[in-house]
Amino acid sequence: MWNSRDIEVTPGARCSGGQISASSTLEDSGRLMGLQSRLDRAHHVAMTRNAFAPDNALVRNCLAGRDALVVMSPSVHRLYGPRIRAYFEEVTDVHFMVLHRTEASKSLDAVVEVTERAAAVGLRRTSPIVAIGGGVCTDISGLAAALHRRGVPHFNVPTTLVGLVDAGIGTKNAVNHGRRKSALGTFYPPEHTVLDIDFLATLPRRQLANGLAEIIKLAVVKDRPLFELLDRYGMRLLDCGFRRPVRAADEIVWRAAAGMLAELARNQFEIGDFRRKVDFGHTFSPYIEVASGHSVLHGEAVAMDIALSAQLAHALGLLTEADLERILTMLETTGLALVWPGLSVDALCATLPSIVEHRNGDLHLVVPTGIGTCEFLGAADINPALLRASMAELVRRTCRDDIQTVQRRTLAASGGQ
Amino acid sequence: MWNSRDIEVTPGARCSGGQISASSTLEDSGRLMGLQSRLDRAHHVAMTRNAFAPDNALVRNCLAGRDALVVMSPSVHRLYGPRIRAYFEEVTDVHFMVLHRTEASKSLDAVVEVTERAAAVGLRRTSPIVAIGGGVCTDISGLAAALHRRGVPHFNVPTTLVGLVDAGIGTKNAVNHGRRKSALGTFYPPEHTVLDIDFLATLPRRQLANGLAEIIKLAVVKDRPLFELLDRYGMRLLDCGFRRPVRAADEIVWRAAAGMLAELARNQFEIGDFRRKVDFGHTFSPYIEVASGHSVLHGEAVAMDIALSAQLAHALGLLTEADLERILTMLETTGLALVWPGLSVDALCATLPSIVEHRNGDLHLVVPTGIGTCEFLGAADINPALLRASMAELVRRTCRDDIQTVQRRTLAASGGQ
Repeated sequence: MWNSRDIEVTPGARCSGGQISASSTLEDSGRLMGLQSRLDRAHHVAMTRNAFAPDNALVRNCLAGRDALVVMSPSVHRLYGPRIRAYFEEVTDVHFMVLHRTEASKSLDAVVEVTERAAAVGLRRTSPIVAIGGGVCTDISGLAAALHRRGVPHFNVPTTLVGLVDAGIGTKNAVNHGRRKSALGTFYPPEHTVLDIDFLATLPRRQLANGLAEIIKLAVVKDRPLFELLDRYGMRLLDCGFRRPVRAADEIVWRAAAGMLAELARNQFEIGDFRRKVDFGHTFSPYIEVASGHSVLHGEAVAMDIALSAQLAHALGLLTEADLERILTMLETTGLALVWPGLSVDALCATLPSIVEHRNGDLHLVVPTGIGTCEFLGAADINPALLRASMAELVRRTCRDDIQTVQRRTLAASGGQ
Repeated sequence: MWNSRDIEVTPGARCSGGQISASSTLEDSGRLMGLQSRLDRAHHVAMTRNAFAPDNALVRNCLAGRDALVVMSPSVHRLYGPRIRAYFEEVTDVHFMVLHRTEASKSLDAVVEVTERAAAVGLRRTSPIVAIGGGVCTDISGLAAALHRRGVPHFNVPTTLVGLVDAGIGTKNAVNHGRRKSALGTFYPPEHTVLDIDFLATLPRRQLANGLAEIIKLAVVKDRPLFELLDRYGMRLLDCGFRRPVRAADEIVWRAAAGMLAELARNQFEIGDFRRKVDFGHTFSPYIEVASGHSVLHGEAVAMDIALSAQLAHALGLLTEADLERILTMLETTGLALVWPGLSVDALCATLPSIVEHRNGDLHLVVPTGIGTCEFLGAADINPALLRASMAELVRRTCRDDIQTVQRRTLAASGGQ
């Protein structure tokens, strides 16, 4: 159904509108009826550069003449607001809003705020909500689109690295509620995702490292060539906001996005099988995010979870010392911490039953068995003692690194090498 | 896929668990990707009697061994609570809650209340939320099921007549927000609906009439035999809580439910075509419900909308005097008012643009063209003057009836005939 000719990423070309179709059949036997429904959706992901340059028609073509509500994060509004407003000026009836939310305030009332604006501007049922921002912005807007008038289309234009390779291309949206992360949400595929690496140029280094954690995650469990690319270009890209080398930036982002989407395609709505490779780094991390009051960013928590899972795999004899070393070193060079000082292994263990619940009865902990391969562990495979020992190893390593840094600095200050 | 052998309505028989499947395919051409997803769902509707009698296995079989959260309306809890609790006692881990909400408080925080309870009892992702109650209860529970953990299954056991023929079997759920009726919701088919007419025995007469309005709606636009059944048995059923005649009760409810579901099957997710016969009676009624502060019940507002739409159709020469008379008489004998005294035609007209918006660009006003046939009108086909004249006709008719009633009573009081 989808055809690559439908969208063009070069200026002036046209792209198809949303594709969603459904069919239902009813069988009625007098005291029993069965309504079989089938819902088909197409999610288009396109990569472009300078998406809101006046002559780049991609986003305009995705709108295909429809009204839209554009939701921007405060950073996007500050840095690109005028350009984005100008871009849409002569298109159709496009309305704007700035969403002042962070992960800590990504709650249901933010969703309501977007739907109220959509209602106020009279957004029609086939007109999209277009989120331009990071994961917080796309998550909130996606859920707002799912709920407004029982569902309007939505586009994601992710502007962070996490967004480009994960939040902006996923099918899921959610907000936090109480102390439960992603407690309320839906599976609701976007109609279009537009990937534009140029946004990364203005992204703070911490945010870039945060996004790299998700790419490292994917590389470790399923994509060794991606790991090699990160090894070779990761630091350079981190230093220049993914500006150079252009080809490496394109390839890493596209490969990660495509890898993520391919994993999603295996079980997009998480039916039946709750063993997902992309859950690597996402078992212990929700605890860290919530316990830290979201002072630890999502990708930072994922990095700590990767480190712990890899260390566990090594302790269980599933991962060689050399591969463990490669994984931990990559996290460290990216500037991602391996442990969160506030972590309590007991408190962490106390959260595992809720993960088991969420994965419908087992832990399905993803652990690496090499660079590019992984395995799933059950709740019975791990225990607090094992977790404590693995955590202690990581703490020791971090302290050793800290001591070495202090030693180097002391030597440098004293004029030595 | 669905097979009538999967469910049995007789005691002791088994029924299938939920059927939901999905597939996705990814095409990646280097700078464009398309993720095609297909989501299949089966919604089973079964009719039984005395659903929570100890030996009626239907609902237990629908659970198929899963945990559940049972959500009851206060009336259901008061009248049937002990029986329902006993029914589930020896089944699985079933939790209960009573939802104290009315149409006026059918809001997002009610949905949150249900999801919080689901989280507190540790409801798993494949375990259903089972709503036992009227439309308010099934609407709130359905949306809670759609949002909790991004979607858990839900069952509807409607206990009102509106629920049996409309709210409990529909695909849509929603809550009100601000002054917007059904502002936030989703399309989320239940896994099972269990229809049990025995609940109607304890339903107040006003609630029965309220439900009959939805059946009249369906009969007028698409089912003349159903209209004849109502003509013949409607009053008797209304007088005895649908207890007798048993066959007529069964046939009217099943025929209405099946007719509703058949209409839904034509466009279950309301994609593309916004012309829906079942929207008959649902164009002016949201205004009446909201403007009356929900003191006018949903079905009562639908009845007023039916009367106005029929009167409009007659004014436009689309409906004969005789058919108009049959429709209005049926509403009147059922005890449904034709006009709401608080109605302002100007205020009503002011709400039409939002209906147009909701139906994606045109009014698609459903008007009867006979008993069992209908037509769609555009916004251009009607105007305030026409509405005012039609409304005046209905007011005149109501006053005339009132005067006749007064005359009859006066004559009776004075000993005359």
